[in-house]
Amino acid sequence: MSENRTVRVAVAGASGYIGGELLRLLLDHPHVEVALATSNSFAGKRVHHPHPNLRGRTELTFSPHDGLAGVHGLDVLFLAMPHGHTMTRMPEYLDRARVVVDLGGDFRLRDPADYPRYYGKDHPAPALLSSFVTGLPEWHRDELRSSDRIAVPGCMATAGILTVRPLAEAGMLDGPVQVDARTGSSGSGATAGPANLHAERSGAMRVFAPTEHRHEAEIAQATGLPVRMTATGVEAVRGVQVLCRAPLAPGTREADLRAAYRKAYANEPFVRVVAQRTGTYRLPEPKILAGSNYCDVGFAVAAGAQAVLVGALDNLVKGGAGNAVQSMNVRFGWPETTGLSFPGLHPN
Amino acid sequence: MSENRTVRVAVAGASGYIGGELLRLLLDHPHVEVALATSNSFAGKRVHHPHPNLRGRTELTFSPHDGLAGVHGLDVLFLAMPHGHTMTRMPEYLDRARVVVDLGGDFRLRDPADYPRYYGKDHPAPALLSSFVTGLPEWHRDELRSSDRIAVPGCMATAGILTVRPLAEAGMLDGPVQVDARTGSSGSGATAGPANLHAERSGAMRVFAPTEHRHEAEIAQATGLPVRMTATGVEAVRGVQVLCRAPLAPGTREADLRAAYRKAYANEPFVRVVAQRTGTYRLPEPKILAGSNYCDVGFAVAAGAQAVLVGALDNLVKGGAGNAVQSMNVRFGWPETTGLSFPGLHPN
Amino acid sequence: MSENRTVRVAVAGASGYIGGELLRLLLDHPHVEVALATSNSFAGKRVHHPHPNLRGRTELTFSPHDGLAGVHGLDVLFLAMPHGHTMTRMPEYLDRARVVVDLGGDFRLRDPADYPRYYGKDHPAPALLSSFVTGLPEWHRDELRSSDRIAVPGCMATAGILTVRPLAEAGMLDGPVQVDARTGSSGSGATAGPANLHAERSGAMRVFAPTEHRHEAEIAQATGLPVRMTATGVEAVRGVQVLCRAPLAPGTREADLRAAYRKAYANEPFVRVVAQRTGTYRLPEPKILAGSNYCDVGFAVAAGAQAVLVGALDNLVKGGAGNAVQSMNVRFGWPETTGLSFPGLHPN
Amino acid sequence: MSENRTVRVAVAGASGYIGGELLRLLLDHPHVEVALATSNSFAGKRVHHPHPNLRGRTELTFSPHDGLAGVHGLDVLFLAMPHGHTMTRMPEYLDRARVVVDLGGDFRLRDPADYPRYYGKDHPAPALLSSFVTGLPEWHRDELRSSDRIAVPGCMATAGILTVRPLAEAGMLDGPVQVDARTGSSGSGATAGPANLHAERSGAMRVFAPTEHRHEAEIAQATGLPVRMTATGVEAVRGVQVLCRAPLAPGTREADLRAAYRKAYANEPFVRVVAQRTGTYRLPEPKILAGSNYCDVGFAVAAGAQAVLVGALDNLVKGGAGNAVQSMNVRFGWPETTGLSFPGLHPN
Repeated sequence: MSENRTVRVAVAGASGYIGGELLRLLLDHPHVEVALATSNSFAGKRVHHPHPNLRGRTELTFSPHDGLAGVHGLDVLFLAMPHGHTMTRMPEYLDRARVVVDLGGDFRLRDPADYPRYYGKDHPAPALLSSFVTGLPEWHRDELRSSDRIAVPGCMATAGILTVRPLAEAGMLDGPVQVDARTGSSGSGATAGPANLHAERSGAMRVFAPTEHRHEAEIAQATGLPVRMTATGVEAVRGVQVLCRAPLAPGTREADLRAAYRKAYANEPFVRVVAQRTGTYRLPEPKILAGSNYCDVGFAVAAGAQAVLVGALDNLVKGGAGNAVQSMNVRFGWPETTGLSFPGLHPN
Repeated sequence: MSENRTVRVAVAGASGYIGGELLRLLLDHPHVEVALATSNSFAGKRVHHPHPNLRGRTELTFSPHDGLAGVHGLDVLFLAMPHGHTMTRMPEYLDRARVVVDLGGDFRLRDPADYPRYYGKDHPAPALLSSFVTGLPEWHRDELRSSDRIAVPGCMATAGILTVRPLAEAGMLDGPVQVDARTGSSGSGATAGPANLHAERSGAMRVFAPTEHRHEAEIAQATGLPVRMTATGVEAVRGVQVLCRAPLAPGTREADLRAAYRKAYANEPFVRVVAQRTGTYRLPEPKILAGSNYCDVGFAVAAGAQAVLVGALDNLVKGGAGNAVQSMNVRFGWPETTGLSFPGLHPN
Repeated sequence: MSENRTVRVAVAGASGYIGGELLRLLLDHPHVEVALATSNSFAGKRVHHPHPNLRGRTELTFSPHDGLAGVHGLDVLFLAMPHGHTMTRMPEYLDRARVVVDLGGDFRLRDPADYPRYYGKDHPAPALLSSFVTGLPEWHRDELRSSDRIAVPGCMATAGILTVRPLAEAGMLDGPVQVDARTGSSGSGATAGPANLHAERSGAMRVFAPTEHRHEAEIAQATGLPVRMTATGVEAVRGVQVLCRAPLAPGTREADLRAAYRKAYANEPFVRVVAQRTGTYRLPEPKILAGSNYCDVGFAVAAGAQAVLVGALDNLVKGGAGNAVQSMNVRFGWPETTGLSFPGLHPN
Repeated sequence: MSENRTVRVAVAGASGYIGGELLRLLLDHPHVEVALATSNSFAGKRVHHPHPNLRGRTELTFSPHDGLAGVHGLDVLFLAMPHGHTMTRMPEYLDRARVVVDLGGDFRLRDPADYPRYYGKDHPAPALLSSFVTGLPEWHRDELRSSDRIAVPGCMATAGILTVRPLAEAGMLDGPVQVDARTGSSGSGATAGPANLHAERSGAMRVFAPTEHRHEAEIAQATGLPVRMTATGVEAVRGVQVLCRAPLAPGTREADLRAAYRKAYANEPFVRVVAQRTGTYRLPEPKILAGSNYCDVGFAVAAGAQAVLVGALDNLVKGGAGNAVQSMNVRFGWPETTGLSFPGLHPN
């Protein structure tokens, strides 16, 4: 049942890139009032200081992060905090709002045993892990309708899951999945270090995670398959593309892949199957997705019965803020595309 | 008086970059039905072939350009044809729709004498020139309310006019204006030649028009000042920035400039004054405007009482398709921001 | 035995990107005189017309391609022609010069049966295939010393071979190799079509060959392992990076990989092993290799005993013209680094 | 008289971008031995840590900056320190080597009165200013032959001076010069702050100095004309382009400009006049100059008898380290192109 009143939301960590994208989407969302945006470094400043695209769109100023404690009646609290932060403070945040949407990595993995391996330490609140629902409506829509605890998956994980899972569910993949993820620089955040200086990062093909990237665990969790992932930073600000390979189950043909994707996504507003034989944009390409909430997925079959799967999205939108807003739309019963209609630009 | 019914529009030359941007905006416009999109090279194909961002947004296919002749009851015809085309065929187009919006250069200049100099030939229909209104609502709003013939200014011209005119009108500029325009590659269009090959154009600082760029004449016409313009292609797909310099009239101070801009644009939804002393985005910057209909303008005063003025916009939106849609909104009495609310992205 | 006299060389197809790079290297080579550079489209024009970096470096003008027939006493003929051209005309070229170096794809594969699959047709001169030596000194040095027929491998193939072969030779790889190749736009050549327009190609992550790329066959031929390759165009003008994965043979450890690379390349002037634990440039990165003849190779080991190997080079230099010059140096007994000492730039 | 023995040099501030470029050039210079490279942040580390392009080219490690005091018998000391540093410590540096080459801004301006305006403070050693010779051989060759104190001009200043001075000397310019400088991100150095983060700086057209840029004073000093300069960061790592405009003296024609440039630069190895009517590279373009020591200059004449002049160079080479090496070559009587022969790349 949809709620027609305006819901009051807060964004914690709102001066970062994911935070800014949340503000962009939420400020234009017809059912939302942004009651609070926190940032210790920009406290007291107008939102357009770190987010110049929002100049003239709002009078909102940042509050210090502790300001959250003084706000009552929040319907939704979006947490866009650095990894490792919500892990330790989640109980407090759960008290602050009816619905909590965590965009960081701290509550994405269901198995506490994964944290030492992928996050380098034990999870301090393992009992909470199972109470979170993955904020990916395409695969968790029903749970999201009634969940008050939502963990939005990682940007590369979202692309990987949306690309691989339909075939995994259909039993078409026979063995481990290799994921080559390529990503733009915004994924490193607004406080990235010297390796992200323009002169160093420009034109890069930087294999920054040849093995053991955290998002690997999320894709494995969602698909039930072993996953080996590499992550490479390429020249782009926004955009993630995953190129996934896996052996096909015996007898699986290219047409079966198309059918499996269509079955999974025929009614999805934000997933498009892109696998053309001609034209410039034959397979998913993130450059036309900037600002949009689409994840495009495509496929080919290589010799040796190997599936070559491609997924693409904007890491800050479908790989973060857009996914969060879409999950909120599901949770509150609004049309899922509300506030998310921007189609992306071409050329771009 | 606004028209609340849906208006039927056609886009001629719809497979180009301006045409694609018109489609993006018009397909999401609540008061518009796109009845026809013409393209000889893509006739019969779906709109997403040349415009992959529109995949899944419409079932529309391109019609051959001659298909226009068979369409009746058009309210608006948008002409996104190559320069030189509408010059010879405008009478025919004027018969086809109630309102004609020309996005090319053929009807932008009011003085027939300018055409030999800037377009290399006499204008074949000089009598029509004075019947067109410049499609720039900020300076022609009242005329646009009742005009059926609209000529949208050039992308660099729009930036130059919006940046210079408030000060020219206020009598604050004393002498010729130098305009240093920088532009992204999309301004060269979807059929550009080998000089626009990625390997050649990437990372360029190409002074492709050191003198006599056509948009120079438009800025001169709109400001009443002599204009000397250069145009340089820089690394970007979208985006135009103009850096304009002119001597200040005696006694004019920096605060006067701010006041003049505020007076001109205080109530404008799409012009923002950006002139900060701190921060990364102190003066107008096109990279955060991609997809938006904003033109940001800013200023500084150099030694020797010289105004240094900066304007920025997305050449395909406020410098083209967005301006056209905004003009249509004015013409039909709709809120001017209808269909134009996308704020742009940061980072981008 | 080295030849100390100056050798006379010709470059056929000298107005293309590989041709231009050959000219850059050969014009500065102390033992070479460039007697002829052919180009039908630029015949009669100075070399700097298509290659503006060579302005002021030579008085050479292009000859029509047929001009080759009138030149006598050529020591070396470099063929930088489009794929498919030398296949049909090689006997004629072999008459023209003592040593022929083919930079196209027509004589790279030794097995005639590979041509129908990868080049779409039978090879018209299969008997010649076995007379060519692969122009990759790291693996064919001894043969090159006396060969008069040299076929330089493809750019992505060179990166793949140099990265994979040491481990293949050492028996450390146990099964098929997956090669994820990323490439800049110069690989498409100076006459690329509309898909390579800047506005389309800029910022791309374009999986243009999800399967069956021709260079796949070259890597397989050189390593003796099955290869599955994808090729993606990313934002760069120059540069190729390959990310290769293969299962490790039982018991193979990370230290073994390092040892195998060191053994293979310890004395190689143009292959560097780059596999650091810290710093920004931990694994091979093409952006610092532009203009240089280096191929950097690196490695990591993922869970499941999977090798993750990374190679990088400049596609026009070590992936083409540089490799050709290095092969010529070997053939004529000159120090291998002659004319190839440029180290690349940082930042870049 | 040339010195044929090897000279011993040190580079202070060698981990920065200018320092790295000095090392690249000096390590390959046939008459030079690099005795010391200082960097406090990289002391004890190999040169390739901050300069990955030099991997395998040298065994040199960084010394702490104080290490300079312990080195004797230096012929040349290159100072690539942050602005403001050498101002206070020059007397000490002059004791350390026979020839001192300062690449920072502290000794570029001859008039002490310029420092408060452009550097924000009085110069602490004004008496030393006149003892420095500008390290720009094209205009100071004779002085450089015997100078032991060399101040290399700023990157944008070098481009501006080489572009404007021939016409100024010939009396062809009649009034103030407007300089629009565009620059890549490497000009901000290896320790730039958050505004130079890739996600912020990528694709920028950032007017970071609308007025009063320091290099303005250098161009005025060298040309004797009033200069008004703006500086804009555009998308590039390397590269500076200046677009300069000035009124022509009565009667001056386009052919006179060409003649003046030819007269000034006919015998210069590193300045090329580029002003073509056709082709893609008609006017100077920095993208083909990366790594080279060229400064290309070109011109056009606009209506109203206005000169439009264009200069381009690589800010780290001809705009810094290359200019310094060229000056050293002059000082020691070696051929001026020694160690500076790299022509730049195309495409790039």
